[in-house]
Amino acid sequence: MNFTQKSELIREKNKSNLVIGLDTDLQKIPVYFLNYKNPALEFNKAVIDCTKDICAGYKLNIAFYEYLEESGIEAMRESLKAIPDELIKICDAKRGDIDNTAEKYAEVYFDKYNFDSVTISPYMGTDSIKPFIKRNNKHVFVLALTSNNSYADFEMLKAGERHLYEHVTETILSAGSEDNTGFVFGANHLQEIKNFSEKNPGVSLLIPGIGAQGNDPAILIENVKTKNFVINSSREIIYAAEKEDSLSLISEKIRTSAVKLNKIIRSNEN
Amino acid sequence: MNFTQKSELIREKNKSNLVIGLDTDLQKIPVYFLNYKNPALEFNKAVIDCTKDICAGYKLNIAFYEYLEESGIEAMRESLKAIPDELIKICDAKRGDIDNTAEKYAEVYFDKYNFDSVTISPYMGTDSIKPFIKRNNKHVFVLALTSNNSYADFEMLKAGERHLYEHVTETILSAGSEDNTGFVFGANHLQEIKNFSEKNPGVSLLIPGIGAQGNDPAILIENVKTKNFVINSSREIIYAAEKEDSLSLISEKIRTSAVKLNKIIRSNEN
Repeated sequence: MNFTQKSELIREKNKSNLVIGLDTDLQKIPVYFLNYKNPALEFNKAVIDCTKDICAGYKLNIAFYEYLEESGIEAMRESLKAIPDELIKICDAKRGDIDNTAEKYAEVYFDKYNFDSVTISPYMGTDSIKPFIKRNNKHVFVLALTSNNSYADFEMLKAGERHLYEHVTETILSAGSEDNTGFVFGANHLQEIKNFSEKNPGVSLLIPGIGAQGNDPAILIENVKTKNFVINSSREIIYAAEKEDSLSLISEKIRTSAVKLNKIIRSNEN
Repeated sequence: MNFTQKSELIREKNKSNLVIGLDTDLQKIPVYFLNYKNPALEFNKAVIDCTKDICAGYKLNIAFYEYLEESGIEAMRESLKAIPDELIKICDAKRGDIDNTAEKYAEVYFDKYNFDSVTISPYMGTDSIKPFIKRNNKHVFVLALTSNNSYADFEMLKAGERHLYEHVTETILSAGSEDNTGFVFGANHLQEIKNFSEKNPGVSLLIPGIGAQGNDPAILIENVKTKNFVINSSREIIYAAEKEDSLSLISEKIRTSAVKLNKIIRSNEN
């Protein structure tokens, strides 16, 4: 089963296009978890436990785990084991390097940690993607048009008739396939998401930039013209509880926040 | 003292423009080190010990440390402590992310590990660089024109009169300064290195792609029109010894290989 099939199955089963971003920061998690030997791991396990039947998967932002050094490595590895196999596991690393280094990263994220997909920065071209798409069941989400303020510095430069991000989607898709290659579009780029998803309904989209980053999911969803997408939300969901809340209250608030967001995301389905 | 000044001082003192890439792979290091609890760390310490007076610094490719999970984190952190303060320490991570994540990476690499400079992929624009250049003594090397096969997929696209990589150098330099912002040019791009270094002699260059990647350092060096550069070599130097060699023989071969390469690199100085 390739990634695109796996993603479709879990979206159907859990009736969800939501990916929860585990951007786990010890300064932000409830104090309940700070008594554990590995607070980040225990927090992640609690988030996974109360949301695994209502989301499509999880995205782990590597920066937050590198920050925790050895215990971050353990938190990442053991959190991934706590996620049921049927859910999609995205490594948000924005990698992009020469072939032997890219191969090493692919071994780390796919073979050691069992992520299903990795985010990739396309600057160096197709051969920094290829080592990641050699495995039948693995996948990349390549940056196309990002949600940050300075996205237009380079992504919107026009070379010939098309913007850089359009060259990226076309060239990268010619090196990969719909089975193993999707793209990241920030939630602020409504018209570009509409155009791309109309033309490429079989290509998976990963859409960050709602919630803490401020874009309205209801408006976004009207512009997504494919079923083949997941929307990431991190801080709005995982930090839905108060610092002093009990475990049961934390779980309830996180789940409620995830259900509420997914309901908006799935409004076109109803 | 900013990075550019630090780099100049150590290049003068050690009469070297060589940066040694610690791409440490347990399958390639001599068996001597495999008896240690942390073979990667002991190997790095041996390399550092026999080269620290004849190179300008070290570059650690994060992929090789991530691969080793917890012991990779330890190897990276403790190797950095074994490098004398006056040498430059480059983190080869090719990061590039939104502001809060970029800030997290900056805290990891600069505040926790004490790297002096980090390599950055510029796709997302200037705000993925800014968190890295806020500290007075820290620095970024931003990818301009890379040494891999598919560099031309995007880096050489022409937007207006200039290629993407030229937009990158100009836009990124306008957000940073010569003190905190340099660029990566692969050793195969002789004419572009010549043009850029003639126009921007104060901007630091990091040049990979000689040795195992096959470009001739003697020809390269004729085209570098600034003193403000370092050339990275990894595999050719650190794997100069045979698998079964003794520690003294390993040290001798690594040092000889580094001295030989630096002599070619410095031929314009003599």
